[in-house]
Amino acid sequence: MNDTISDRRKDLRARHDRVMGQGAPLFYDEPIQLVRGEGVWLYDVDGTRYLDCYNNVPCVGHANERVVAAMHSQAATLNVHSRYLHENVIRYAERLTSLHHDGLESVVIVCTGSEANEIALAIAREATGRAGIVCTDATYHGNTPEVAKLTHRPVDRPAAGVRSIATPQMYRPSTPGLSEDQLCDGAIADLETQIAAFESDGTGFAGAIFCPLLANEGLTNPPAGFFERMVDVVHRAGGLVIADEVQAGFARSGSWWGYETVGFRPDVAVVGKPMGNGLPIAGVVAPHDLISNFRQRHRYFNTFAASPLQAAAGNAVISEIESRGLVDQVARVGADVKSELQQLQPERPSMGDVRGHGLFIGVDWVHPGTTDPDPDGAAAVVEAMRSRRVLLSRAGEHGNVLKIRPPLIFDSEHADILLEAFAEATDGTLGV
Amino acid sequence: MNDTISDRRKDLRARHDRVMGQGAPLFYDEPIQLVRGEGVWLYDVDGTRYLDCYNNVPCVGHANERVVAAMHSQAATLNVHSRYLHENVIRYAERLTSLHHDGLESVVIVCTGSEANEIALAIAREATGRAGIVCTDATYHGNTPEVAKLTHRPVDRPAAGVRSIATPQMYRPSTPGLSEDQLCDGAIADLETQIAAFESDGTGFAGAIFCPLLANEGLTNPPAGFFERMVDVVHRAGGLVIADEVQAGFARSGSWWGYETVGFRPDVAVVGKPMGNGLPIAGVVAPHDLISNFRQRHRYFNTFAASPLQAAAGNAVISEIESRGLVDQVARVGADVKSELQQLQPERPSMGDVRGHGLFIGVDWVHPGTTDPDPDGAAAVVEAMRSRRVLLSRAGEHGNVLKIRPPLIFDSEHADILLEAFAEATDGTLGV
Repeated sequence: MNDTISDRRKDLRARHDRVMGQGAPLFYDEPIQLVRGEGVWLYDVDGTRYLDCYNNVPCVGHANERVVAAMHSQAATLNVHSRYLHENVIRYAERLTSLHHDGLESVVIVCTGSEANEIALAIAREATGRAGIVCTDATYHGNTPEVAKLTHRPVDRPAAGVRSIATPQMYRPSTPGLSEDQLCDGAIADLETQIAAFESDGTGFAGAIFCPLLANEGLTNPPAGFFERMVDVVHRAGGLVIADEVQAGFARSGSWWGYETVGFRPDVAVVGKPMGNGLPIAGVVAPHDLISNFRQRHRYFNTFAASPLQAAAGNAVISEIESRGLVDQVARVGADVKSELQQLQPERPSMGDVRGHGLFIGVDWVHPGTTDPDPDGAAAVVEAMRSRRVLLSRAGEHGNVLKIRPPLIFDSEHADILLEAFAEATDGTLGV
Repeated sequence: MNDTISDRRKDLRARHDRVMGQGAPLFYDEPIQLVRGEGVWLYDVDGTRYLDCYNNVPCVGHANERVVAAMHSQAATLNVHSRYLHENVIRYAERLTSLHHDGLESVVIVCTGSEANEIALAIAREATGRAGIVCTDATYHGNTPEVAKLTHRPVDRPAAGVRSIATPQMYRPSTPGLSEDQLCDGAIADLETQIAAFESDGTGFAGAIFCPLLANEGLTNPPAGFFERMVDVVHRAGGLVIADEVQAGFARSGSWWGYETVGFRPDVAVVGKPMGNGLPIAGVVAPHDLISNFRQRHRYFNTFAASPLQAAAGNAVISEIESRGLVDQVARVGADVKSELQQLQPERPSMGDVRGHGLFIGVDWVHPGTTDPDPDGAAAVVEAMRSRRVLLSRAGEHGNVLKIRPPLIFDSEHADILLEAFAEATDGTLGV
């Protein structure tokens, strides 16, 4: 019987690799075949139930009833492109912009975060008439060619129009022994250097793009005030600040937006992943004049975007977050999980650091007695957690930061399950 | 009462322009506020019913029951990203590739046609190790920066890595008096010239991308054998041929694919718009080794793509096309519409040419007694048709080609309504 199930999964895997191509990414040594989801739970084809501590897209829960009903009702009524007027699309856009500070009053709605970040870069470049974009060194802002230039590029190999700064790593300083203040001063100086380089090589400086949580850098967590200083430098140089809220936004950090949690006001906010609880939707929120300038230059149209279906899902997601008080819940549950994980550290020297905001928590996995990253050990924890029926993953420039990022509806009862499994999986006697 | 409705619509328009930005595109002098769709019909907020002769995305009809039910059922069960295995996603990918010729056996599923075309260009460039892409001169392959370089760029102002050829215009030759054969020979020679230019300037030639129906060029309709000759030239130069089937595919032309209708076999096929009847989904279909090569180089992942929700909608669309025999219906109804329109030509000298394939028909609107394009006249016809409650639009490099492109379920009874309205709207005594 087990052989049959295993054979079937092998066959499915072979079909997957054939039709999707070799190298289409799959999680886990033996991939999971999912068939059903509900709230924070996922079920595989054998009926095994997993606690989902990884997926941020289904933010208000897998198969959320309100979102499913709203999408169904709208799909059965009308779904059409944005060159006709539709009351609910406009209302959704107004609602989305009203969640940001007053200056961000207009939006370009698109389908994916990559599309949105490409537009954000164009807006910054066209508003300033200059091309240079500064990003962080281990970042990811999408998979299309123009934003892919931002992906993990060492400072000494700049792409045309892109330069990166060394992200200040609080736990693992680039130069051992540097204090937090010295690391932040170094990053600020690096930002100034890259801006000056753009100015002296004729590129000119258009702006900077940051994930407020520095998620792909491993949630490095610089101290309060750091981002405000970065913004000051960007603004003094005449650039725009783009907050990439694709991972950080929609209550993930215990505020509506990551930029609120870390304390700055962007000129452009890019939103995505959780917006439609799984329906493709993303957007660029910015001042009216910047959006209008972009519209008029490009006559931008996106076939599937700003549709009644997107608006229905998007409105339902915002309503769920608001009516269930998820911003506060995320802050509360996330703080508890982080604190409980920190209590496990003394007996687990591989847990070098526990950090993050809200329900986006990283555990920096190291070789005991050092701060040296241990990606293989982290990978083993991910597999050990899977065998304990809890799904999580890894992040960071070394791939050694365990990434705990469950749906926003994750509550204390789920935290208990996660923590018990984590304590077991990382107990030295169990072989991890 | 009418004032109130008009005031409300003005207010909605003002809200739209504020929140979406000035310049977000809207159809018609006075935009239509839609509230409901069913089959080939659309209803505005006042209850007015329009015959939809424009929208290709809801290919199996607005609010199609099978698609709506499939999406609802799947959204209520599971919708998650593609790094877990899912039987129905793999089955959909297999079904989609099996609709193409044998060489095209693998697929990268994405969300938008722009994303898909960006990947197709990357595949051609990486497979050949060369950068140069040839396209046609009045084309459109998407709105993201890399594919936007292909948009309507005169031959004498090439972008880096992109050169365009003069599309052979059968009805309105670039040099008056040239025969069809001479025009085609000229285009072939132009293709050879652009390839040689890439080779001599060090760019190298990667491949060519064509919409098989030359839709954005105004459905220019070169004679049988033309595309086969183009493909031969591309292959002899070591390049790949990309068929952009985003508009041409999914039974639109009376075959499953536009490349079948015009008679060639692409190396890469890009599919999009109608795939999910309105759900964002697109894809790149290509040989297994090309897809695998792309996967391995980029570790490409798309958050919302290759999801169970996309697969559910995509499968339902294919099932509808197959079970309702829409490929044949489109061929039959489309041929009738074209023929009936051609019968209107003698009394309407502005109808310079009627052409197209299947349910993608263009009427080249000219100043009477000439072949000079008349975009203002075409725009007036579009408005006059709207006042007769029929929706269509314009295409072509001059914007003077009336574009008739209804959902695939458009049948003879709908054709009669279209043709009666068109005959009225274009009757000289009615002021157009």
